[in-house]
Amino acid sequence: MQIEDTMLVDFLTGALTGTAIVEGARDLASLKGIFGDEEALAALDPSRLVYRVQAFQPVDEGTEGGLFWGSTVLEPGLVGDEYFMTQGHFHAKRNRGEYYSTVAGFGALILMDEARNVRVEWMRPGSTHYIPGYTAHRVANIGDQQLSFLACWPSDAGHDYRTIALHGFSARLLCIEGQPKLVPQP
Amino acid sequence: MQIEDTMLVDFLTGALTGTAIVEGARDLASLKGIFGDEEALAALDPSRLVYRVQAFQPVDEGTEGGLFWGSTVLEPGLVGDEYFMTQGHFHAKRNRGEYYSTVAGFGALILMDEARNVRVEWMRPGSTHYIPGYTAHRVANIGDQQLSFLACWPSDAGHDYRTIALHGFSARLLCIEGQPKLVPQP
Repeated sequence: MQIEDTMLVDFLTGALTGTAIVEGARDLASLKGIFGDEEALAALDPSRLVYRVQAFQPVDEGTEGGLFWGSTVLEPGLVGDEYFMTQGHFHAKRNRGEYYSTVAGFGALILMDEARNVRVEWMRPGSTHYIPGYTAHRVANIGDQQLSFLACWPSDAGHDYRTIALHGFSARLLCIEGQPKLVPQP
Repeated sequence: MQIEDTMLVDFLTGALTGTAIVEGARDLASLKGIFGDEEALAALDPSRLVYRVQAFQPVDEGTEGGLFWGSTVLEPGLVGDEYFMTQGHFHAKRNRGEYYSTVAGFGALILMDEARNVRVEWMRPGSTHYIPGYTAHRVANIGDQQLSFLACWPSDAGHDYRTIALHGFSARLLCIEGQPKLVPQP
């Protein structure tokens, strides 16, 4: 029997390989409005890579009962004193959950419920995090190496990036005297 | 900020650690009726371990939109010429999918649709398999070491073990001259 072209996860780097993988990348320019310190952002190269994503979507987006699988590699860096981070989103279907499973590096999973209460779960190799429904999620890289994590989420979850783009999170994770600190926003 | 007691995955062994992990084990006695060669089964120690499972279930079973995370360690072995394997099941909610991601060892993911068509995907470290809805799934260990894989599935998928207990799969994976071969069943 032949070996099919199965998707492979590299558990050292988080990289996915396989024919049906879709890829994307976000640079600083594409994340304008996300970071708090606009002056610091303006001083950085806008083409600087912040994160790359890979996704395996074996069924159509919106399919009930299906699941997608993804991998994100988030670069280390700061915009002023704010860690490089992902854009952050609620699921369009609010009750849909998700898993993040850390492969390499050190990070912070920043979670915000619909009442805008924020909490952090610390990410380290092997740490596997359940993101409940009704919870916006964003990841910050708090280390000095790449942070890689796998994700699994329902194919009918969808992404609501707009709510975060409009209102942000109610707290920012800043590097204060070399340590991550969650700082409430006015 | 304190470190919570996050679930950890050991990506070398597949083992999960954390406070809320539920565990189970299946020995040969508990898998009676699954293997084809009853005479060979009777000659083996019924208390012999076939597989252990761990599950993280952060929401109640049956919750729509939630996800569970699991780990299975399947021992190497044969019952006659049939590889040690898991019981196999459809999801009770038939359209629910699942991922299996192989951490260690070599195996076969045996998939059967509702028309009883069977196919196999080969499992090796890193291979990550989407199990579509409406598809019964069972794993056989075709190597000489433990086979470990992670799983992620919807919290409202449920398990229908009964259909497989009654009708089995329409093919068995047998070790023929040292190689795995899918053999249709009458």
